[in-house]
Amino acid sequence: MSVQFRKLALIGIGLIGSSIALAARRQGLVDVIAIATRKQETLDEARDLGLGDLYMLDAAEAVRGADLVILCTPVGAYESVIKAIAPFLEPGAIVSDVGSVKGHVVKVLAPHIPAGVHLIPAHPIAGTEHSGPSAGFPELFAGRWCVLTPGPEVDAAETEKLAAFWRAMGSQVECMEPGHHDMVLAITSHIPHLVAYNIVGTVADLEAATQSEVIKFSASGFRDFTRIAASDPVMWRDVFLTNRDAVLEMLGRFTEDLSVLQRAVRTGDGPALEAMFTRTRAIRRSIISAGQETAAADFGRPHEAPPAPPSEDKA
Amino acid sequence: MSVQFRKLALIGIGLIGSSIALAARRQGLVDVIAIATRKQETLDEARDLGLGDLYMLDAAEAVRGADLVILCTPVGAYESVIKAIAPFLEPGAIVSDVGSVKGHVVKVLAPHIPAGVHLIPAHPIAGTEHSGPSAGFPELFAGRWCVLTPGPEVDAAETEKLAAFWRAMGSQVECMEPGHHDMVLAITSHIPHLVAYNIVGTVADLEAATQSEVIKFSASGFRDFTRIAASDPVMWRDVFLTNRDAVLEMLGRFTEDLSVLQRAVRTGDGPALEAMFTRTRAIRRSIISAGQETAAADFGRPHEAPPAPPSEDKA
Repeated sequence: MSVQFRKLALIGIGLIGSSIALAARRQGLVDVIAIATRKQETLDEARDLGLGDLYMLDAAEAVRGADLVILCTPVGAYESVIKAIAPFLEPGAIVSDVGSVKGHVVKVLAPHIPAGVHLIPAHPIAGTEHSGPSAGFPELFAGRWCVLTPGPEVDAAETEKLAAFWRAMGSQVECMEPGHHDMVLAITSHIPHLVAYNIVGTVADLEAATQSEVIKFSASGFRDFTRIAASDPVMWRDVFLTNRDAVLEMLGRFTEDLSVLQRAVRTGDGPALEAMFTRTRAIRRSIISAGQETAAADFGRPHEAPPAPPSEDKA
Repeated sequence: MSVQFRKLALIGIGLIGSSIALAARRQGLVDVIAIATRKQETLDEARDLGLGDLYMLDAAEAVRGADLVILCTPVGAYESVIKAIAPFLEPGAIVSDVGSVKGHVVKVLAPHIPAGVHLIPAHPIAGTEHSGPSAGFPELFAGRWCVLTPGPEVDAAETEKLAAFWRAMGSQVECMEPGHHDMVLAITSHIPHLVAYNIVGTVADLEAATQSEVIKFSASGFRDFTRIAASDPVMWRDVFLTNRDAVLEMLGRFTEDLSVLQRAVRTGDGPALEAMFTRTRAIRRSIISAGQETAAADFGRPHEAPPAPPSEDKA
């Protein structure tokens, strides 16, 4: 396999953008990486980290001569970005992104794509709770899915070029219709995040004394929610603004189910609670056997050894 | 420090019981460990793992001569256990437990405790998603809190003996009033588990085709909920049956807050969403600085390297 792209332009350089830069470089997938971001401070950080070859504040300049352009900004910035770069896109270039919603992205980007440029939105389903250019690492996509949502007008050969790029970074690739992607992600990602943000918010409203105890005793479940709720707020704001219908549909199902559970708690219906808590285990097993999770206890969280036993003789 | 207890009787030998056996042995805290459990199969497993010195199906036999008795069964079994063992408890013995609720436990156990026996309920706030005798490991309690809820009748010296036992296993110990414990744990543990079980249940109700995609794309948030929802169903049934009032109180706050968030999604209120998603970050930072969580990205989940880059020369 030879170099797949001459010039990769990354517009935005957070966790995902920086991980693409590192993975594409390590795998030798591109000759030149141009990085554009709106803030001087972020650009300087990317340069200090040596993430690319060219650094600029002007996205239009970054896309000149690029045969692969990937938008890595929050989805809310896409419209202004595409308007700025559209006149400078190279004929034959692929324009893609990494946003968590796809229907809205197509709606915003498609009208601005010049003839001869291929729009292939993408969603790498990978991440950590950290954000910013220093959060990236080249293994982020290894063993993780990347969903592509090319429109019917896109040539299959172009889609395959982008798919090969993601596979070379370690991803498994699947093509999907944008609306279907948004419904699946609403329940696997958007509702979990909304619920996690919500419960952490409920704690934030508790009186200060109780709150400090909640933090102390957070290992009992709550801390896992705080991890999910630590993701980038602007990114998540945009997800909920742009995938409203699917989120409200799935949230409706969730709250109906929660009312049933609440009733079982109120009436002390032990068999119903146990049945509910048992059937969810099969889903967990499926996730582990699908290779999407480690089976290690506590995710391999460190449990340091307790202090050494006393050296005196036993009484 | 010499051996603190002559004979430790563990009634029930799941994740917590087996971890106590391993930690107490490693730290030299007891001379003899007697293990009693209701099922022959579990008892055989504990014996094969070498968790104790004496193995029996009869809890009453296990507590004879024991100066420390710890109930490690689901809370729902406490009443029958205490009735069975009460006549055989040694004068001066400490009776404790590891249950996730405390008010109910005091109500069930206290009436059966003979004069001269000290009831000191305990809740080690530690766990993984695994259960059973083979799930235990001696570092489980290291750096984790253990809450003791002794009644006013208990001598401080006895409480200190049990506290020293837990500290020697690596725990930090705090004493608390049982009702207060139950309210704090309702929000840090019980509601997170209820919500996690609920969302996994919502997915279990999706049509099969969508469900397989949910599993495929679970790394986007959902899998963290499945971990929480993989804990022992019987234990959790008992938690919700026995901490009903605190759970319903906190669930009420949670659902009120969720309605506010839902409304912000429906009306497209970006500033409200961003503000909500931002203020939750402070709580996460507090948890990490309190030493209750690792700051490692993705909890140190393995991200294997992508395939090696091609060896041919670049085109």
